[in-house]
Amino acid sequence: MTQLESARKGIITKEMEAAAELEGISPELLREGIAQGEIVLPCNINHKGIRPIAVGKGLSTKVNANIGTSDAYPEIEKELEKLKAAIEAGAHSVMDLSTGGDIDQSRKAILQASPVMVGTVPLYQALVDAEEKGRGMVEMTDEDIFHAVEKHCEDGADFITVHCGVTLEVIEALRNNGRVMDIVSRGGSFMTAWMLHNQKENPLYTQYDRLLEIAKKYDVTLSLGDGLRPGCIEDASDAPQIRELIILGELVKRGRDAGVQVMVEGPGHVPLDQITANMKMEKTLCHNAPFYVLGPIVTDVAPGYDHITSAIGGAIAASSGADFLCYVTPAEHLGLPTMEDVKEGVIASRIAAHAADIVKGVKGAKEWDLEMAKARKNLDWERQIQLAIDPVKADRLRKEKNTDTQDCCTMCGKFCAYKIVSEHLGRTFQGGC
Amino acid sequence: MTQLESARKGIITKEMEAAAELEGISPELLREGIAQGEIVLPCNINHKGIRPIAVGKGLSTKVNANIGTSDAYPEIEKELEKLKAAIEAGAHSVMDLSTGGDIDQSRKAILQASPVMVGTVPLYQALVDAEEKGRGMVEMTDEDIFHAVEKHCEDGADFITVHCGVTLEVIEALRNNGRVMDIVSRGGSFMTAWMLHNQKENPLYTQYDRLLEIAKKYDVTLSLGDGLRPGCIEDASDAPQIRELIILGELVKRGRDAGVQVMVEGPGHVPLDQITANMKMEKTLCHNAPFYVLGPIVTDVAPGYDHITSAIGGAIAASSGADFLCYVTPAEHLGLPTMEDVKEGVIASRIAAHAADIVKGVKGAKEWDLEMAKARKNLDWERQIQLAIDPVKADRLRKEKNTDTQDCCTMCGKFCAYKIVSEHLGRTFQGGC
Repeated sequence: MTQLESARKGIITKEMEAAAELEGISPELLREGIAQGEIVLPCNINHKGIRPIAVGKGLSTKVNANIGTSDAYPEIEKELEKLKAAIEAGAHSVMDLSTGGDIDQSRKAILQASPVMVGTVPLYQALVDAEEKGRGMVEMTDEDIFHAVEKHCEDGADFITVHCGVTLEVIEALRNNGRVMDIVSRGGSFMTAWMLHNQKENPLYTQYDRLLEIAKKYDVTLSLGDGLRPGCIEDASDAPQIRELIILGELVKRGRDAGVQVMVEGPGHVPLDQITANMKMEKTLCHNAPFYVLGPIVTDVAPGYDHITSAIGGAIAASSGADFLCYVTPAEHLGLPTMEDVKEGVIASRIAAHAADIVKGVKGAKEWDLEMAKARKNLDWERQIQLAIDPVKADRLRKEKNTDTQDCCTMCGKFCAYKIVSEHLGRTFQGGC
Repeated sequence: MTQLESARKGIITKEMEAAAELEGISPELLREGIAQGEIVLPCNINHKGIRPIAVGKGLSTKVNANIGTSDAYPEIEKELEKLKAAIEAGAHSVMDLSTGGDIDQSRKAILQASPVMVGTVPLYQALVDAEEKGRGMVEMTDEDIFHAVEKHCEDGADFITVHCGVTLEVIEALRNNGRVMDIVSRGGSFMTAWMLHNQKENPLYTQYDRLLEIAKKYDVTLSLGDGLRPGCIEDASDAPQIRELIILGELVKRGRDAGVQVMVEGPGHVPLDQITANMKMEKTLCHNAPFYVLGPIVTDVAPGYDHITSAIGGAIAASSGADFLCYVTPAEHLGLPTMEDVKEGVIASRIAAHAADIVKGVKGAKEWDLEMAKARKNLDWERQIQLAIDPVKADRLRKEKNTDTQDCCTMCGKFCAYKIVSEHLGRTFQGGC
């Protein structure tokens, strides 16, 4: 039985128990959310030893880090180092997006090494396999695609991105609508190329029931990919994007009916004032399925700083309904991220997630800030460092900037507002300076 | 005549012309905004050779960088390097917040070297002067304070922060209300200490007319400081903060009546869901005076990353009415920023400002993103680097990550979505890969 089927039958699994404990909520509440399809708990039955983490309504906002090889950087070892960096920085999930080198090997190595859920994109595998067999991308067969899906599920992928909503109708809408960037989703672009070349409908759409069967067998959560996500501010929230989202909503329902857990992927590049509307549309059109957004980034002009453009978008998205943030690193739009980029990306997304969790009323979120405020007020540096989202960096900066003193801070020195006001208001003050 | 007085008489000054040109709007439109007090154009008559930049309604969002010495780091040279870094990164304004070493000298050096407007806080000067004369902070006289104000104005400060709204009534509200952090504004803390110790009302409030006279003489823009700004998420939008804001609103009116340009300073630490309300309250209570916010940062738990927490808050603030963002650097809450911190802080704030300008409909904002999208679509790397908000960093990352290739990108390599889709949709595609 999948987690969804168990939940519907009123059964609280050990994975639900663990995930509920992590959130500090009752297992029964979590079970209800899963039963309604508003929460997913991606745990492939073949992925041993992972820490179950749930995603969705009423839970803390989760953060995913994309890793994986490419043509130019095929080394698996580097990706395993990035995995470690992502986990240390607090990622709740990683996706293996490998397209270079031995991608079977990287997936298996990442699945084995990861203590958190792992997502994959079987379509990349199908494509690389076809190319290796001397066939071009457009010569992939339906069987190639489903073979890759089955392989990833069997290997233990906890969720898979499947671009089921890129249909001929949606591509026609794209062609007629006009767009600056057309398609920027890799999977979306592969499917589109394949469909246009072969003049055939998307097999992940026409054979969706077959996909559901495989997913159900291993309790893999389907992450319905948004092949038509906007690739620039100008293209945001247009007809092709929303038409695909409507299709994804239908597929959410069919997935749930089949006992398969489903979440939905979302943009991308979105101007500030359209983010809330995008979140709301997903929730209405996709029946409150957990929403997994990429960023969104709020301007196109900041390559080198897209961890910041996406932290802005991610915070607004999460506070208006997104459940799961895919990180964006400083390397985005420039090349494959390094280990340092991965760390920066995870921390930036966690900041966005936490800022949203404060206003979402997530248990413990506000309390964390309150503890920090108290430590700050008392100039308790040890506690401030402990409480920092990145204690290592906070400690390093603190030490670099304050070489002479244990208690003070070089920003204000003796003119410390906390100290001055505490004295004159007659408040207790524990900090020295 | 001040810019405000000229504007009211229908005169378009040469500063208005220059500032309007910079915005790409008509000088007449700018003049109207200044006449109504919804735009300020801080240009001290004694600050020669600066590039006039206007702040307020309908204009692009501006970014300020705080620099200045402290006890532990009294060297003026370092601050001049930071000034240079801030300007290169695109700051529209700097504030000299020096409190260490020869602060007369640092102010003069910064005023002379800065091509953009300079703000100062005369209260810091009054305090340091009093201490040098062997008198403690609480023994400052009214004359000490006004002497410092006059000195800063005469030296050419384009705007000065004056904590006029920290009144005995507001402090009483603070005492009764209860707060985690009490007061975190340095100027606010000095005034509070002084008032409580001397049991006297704030002279910047009781002698506000005297302040207006000085400001008018040099056409200094008053930046009404928010001494009661919240210092942590928990304290945001509370009664003491809003009571002070109401007083600032009255002072805005009195300033305008006297022909003095006035803007208002704002928080601080604000949870995501209170930012828009804060912007709206300032606009209603302060008669649409330009709003100059510090951050705001949206969580307390990320020391080392407060350029990111403030980019999130700043983007939301600016898109809902803030006109001027004071940057926050990665050093915030840890110590005095380095030159590198200054640069990171300015870029992060500029990203926030630009993301907001896109949705504010500021001229040229959306167009910038569109140009980048086109360059990206065509894999035109040279143009992408040119258009980047930080071309130097974008170029460096691009080269580091793509050592073998001129045209491609190591993220997707041959599996480039732009290329694949362009081919199959029959779009023209100029990029090689």
